[in-house]
Amino acid sequence: MGSPGGGGASAAVLIIGDEILSGRTQDTNLRDIARFLGAHGVDLLEARTVPDVLEEIVAALNALRDRYDYVITTGGIGPTHDDITADAVAAAFGVELYEHPEIIGMMEARWGPDNLTAARRRMARVPVGGELVKNPVQGPPGFTIGNVFVLAGVPQIMRGMLEDVGPRLKGGAVVVSRTVRVEGQGEGVIAEPLERVAKAHPAMSLGSYPFYGPEGFGSNLVLRGRDPDEVGRAVSELIEALQGAGVERLAEVATA
Amino acid sequence: MGSPGGGGASAAVLIIGDEILSGRTQDTNLRDIARFLGAHGVDLLEARTVPDVLEEIVAALNALRDRYDYVITTGGIGPTHDDITADAVAAAFGVELYEHPEIIGMMEARWGPDNLTAARRRMARVPVGGELVKNPVQGPPGFTIGNVFVLAGVPQIMRGMLEDVGPRLKGGAVVVSRTVRVEGQGEGVIAEPLERVAKAHPAMSLGSYPFYGPEGFGSNLVLRGRDPDEVGRAVSELIEALQGAGVERLAEVATA
Repeated sequence: MGSPGGGGASAAVLIIGDEILSGRTQDTNLRDIARFLGAHGVDLLEARTVPDVLEEIVAALNALRDRYDYVITTGGIGPTHDDITADAVAAAFGVELYEHPEIIGMMEARWGPDNLTAARRRMARVPVGGELVKNPVQGPPGFTIGNVFVLAGVPQIMRGMLEDVGPRLKGGAVVVSRTVRVEGQGEGVIAEPLERVAKAHPAMSLGSYPFYGPEGFGSNLVLRGRDPDEVGRAVSELIEALQGAGVERLAEVATA
Repeated sequence: MGSPGGGGASAAVLIIGDEILSGRTQDTNLRDIARFLGAHGVDLLEARTVPDVLEEIVAALNALRDRYDYVITTGGIGPTHDDITADAVAAAFGVELYEHPEIIGMMEARWGPDNLTAARRRMARVPVGGELVKNPVQGPPGFTIGNVFVLAGVPQIMRGMLEDVGPRLKGGAVVVSRTVRVEGQGEGVIAEPLERVAKAHPAMSLGSYPFYGPEGFGSNLVLRGRDPDEVGRAVSELIEALQGAGVERLAEVATA
């Protein structure tokens, strides 16, 4: 159908997970994706929530990808047996899954080559023809195939992955993205310097994506903008402002 | 499907409103309805969110009411021009709308017979053959026709209306849900024992819901089934299997 009003691209969201339909978990991903798409000039026209059942995911995915310019899925890409989104996406596109060497490499670097359990290897599976979607938070990346983006269900990881979806959206301006990683600090210390730099650069988007995990805690601060020079200046200003606020363990990182 | 064991009645939720798809409003009705249905032994198997567009509402409504035992809609029954849910439900069922005398009576009692504006009269419109769903909060009632319940979008009003939906549901057995919380372990270690127990109890639903936060990380393992004894056995088996895999920090917790 395209979008009402015409012009912009259209999108649908597919939320995958029994935990949403049982009422155990309050979904917030739909709202976050809706706002993100809006900021990129893409009209979100439908959302569906389906259980962790292969045929249901495949049917919904095929209905939505046929009708809208983009489909964004959340959930079901973890290592457990009920995480079947990759299987469903491969089935919907009629392709096989394979273990992506880049993800296997990341896992070996993190856990050691001898600790890649079958469960962990599940998370390396990507449909043939798919490309990775970067995960700046923690854990393996998402992927994209055709007009479908497959993202994590955990909200802070999902939001981080959206940063790598934006530049791929048709009509969305080409955006430069750089990441400053802060370790050992909660967002409480980060918030003020981040907001100050954000206000000084209203044309840019600055986001904080906290991480907590076995490797420690902290936050990845993602700076996005259309002007590479301005993004560079903002990175310098942010690092200076954070240091001024007493943050010591920080560095610009290549977005994982 | 997503229901443990099957046998119970099935349901879908249809959320109507541009404000959800634009990201302006965070929906909470889906979670509330999901919990309500679960407590009544009805399996919620799908949810859709559609914009305030007549043909979209009609198409989704017809797809869902054909497939599930019950459909619950929220939103679009207010007085403004974009509140078109009643029109869409009437169109889906191929019937006319009429001004329900009971609603007109309530409005006259509240505002006086001379103050029934056209906007207010809109809220008195019910499809021919429909019955009212009581609204114990404020404003006009919802209605039901066929297997469809049409409720308000405002959460506290929606919840109030659900009270009058419950007695009309032919529920199955109530699902028992228990939760084992694992701390300090990623899903990689959990996946294998969880899958083993899930396979031993095909009538049940077992899911892993990881959490990451300032308080640490881990996963809540949720076991759901219709037979309380079987659920109890599965909880014991899972705890034993996890301990056998080296997981130490785990305990059953009260499910929220």
